[in-house]
Amino acid sequence: MPTRGDRTKAEIVATAAHLFNERGFAGTSMSHVLAATGLEKGGIYRHFQSKDELALASFDYALHVLEERRGQALKDQYTAFERLTACIDVVAESVKSPPLRGGCPILNTAIDADDTHAALRKRAQHAVKRWQGLIEDILEDGKASGEIDHRADASAIATVITSALEGAIMITSLLRCFAQMDRVAKHLHQLVASYRTPVAITR
Amino acid sequence: MPTRGDRTKAEIVATAAHLFNERGFAGTSMSHVLAATGLEKGGIYRHFQSKDELALASFDYALHVLEERRGQALKDQYTAFERLTACIDVVAESVKSPPLRGGCPILNTAIDADDTHAALRKRAQHAVKRWQGLIEDILEDGKASGEIDHRADASAIATVITSALEGAIMITSLLRCFAQMDRVAKHLHQLVASYRTPVAITR
Repeated sequence: MPTRGDRTKAEIVATAAHLFNERGFAGTSMSHVLAATGLEKGGIYRHFQSKDELALASFDYALHVLEERRGQALKDQYTAFERLTACIDVVAESVKSPPLRGGCPILNTAIDADDTHAALRKRAQHAVKRWQGLIEDILEDGKASGEIDHRADASAIATVITSALEGAIMITSLLRCFAQMDRVAKHLHQLVASYRTPVAITR
Repeated sequence: MPTRGDRTKAEIVATAAHLFNERGFAGTSMSHVLAATGLEKGGIYRHFQSKDELALASFDYALHVLEERRGQALKDQYTAFERLTACIDVVAESVKSPPLRGGCPILNTAIDADDTHAALRKRAQHAVKRWQGLIEDILEDGKASGEIDHRADASAIATVITSALEGAIMITSLLRCFAQMDRVAKHLHQLVASYRTPVAITR
């Protein structure tokens, strides 16, 4: 059973995750976290020695929220086509109902920490690799079961899907225009559909 | 003829543009700019009243560098297919030889200023719209001349190209892996080629 300390720690991380995601690493100070949580300085430093430590825990929390949502979207999707469609749609929908304020934590952290914060960058790298790996695995499973054309280049398709979605999150949010994401999602649906084998389509 | 003051101002902007692009708006302070330029405080504040003013001038400078390079790439490209290919390649090559340290200023500013700095965000919005507008114009010209399939949805294609390239810049830089951009560029070349009319291909 979680102690009161555990609960406080979890609340600090959840609050800080939104702040870091909205304001960036450099733009978030411990005073912002103090103000947002309403805790005393000691109440935070008991759990986190530094802003760095809190930022890393916040990224892990943000990624967990993202992957939970993706897991929900993939539940009950069995064919490769359904699973790839769900992978695209869960991100496309996230621009309308963001799991976290401030947009995609991978994108934000990649830009924010790219030149400045090695440990955060490692976390973001790992997150992109897991995401691309998931898409590649679905494609390879689809090839093995005869559902996806065996000539499909799984790494290339995973790169195109993740890049287009990340860029679309940025542009949709910048222009405040959902049509941007809708167009990219439609393009990616067509891309995925183009690799279905004739057998899979009529099945 | 530019005065000594003009030259100093231009040097401040060029130096600050790299700093803002690498460190972000929140991560760059006037002290960083002082240190990088080697100027006294008064030497900078004579030209720029505030960090905000300098950040806006820096973004304009960065965008000018980008658009100059794009202009060079488009020079001597006459068909729609050649021009679209050049639009894709100039960005794809930018990950290997960045026009500015710190990656794409549109992407960086969009993420950095999205929730915090309205005037910078406006500049980044305008930059994306100009870029998408250029691609749309090339496509419409190609439709008018019979080179591009009249069914091609110019806004949708412009959104897909710009999103995929921006996402690929982010992921390529995050993973330190040029193959990511190469895959996206190849996909976009194929996309553009798929809209060429049979007449244009044999011409």
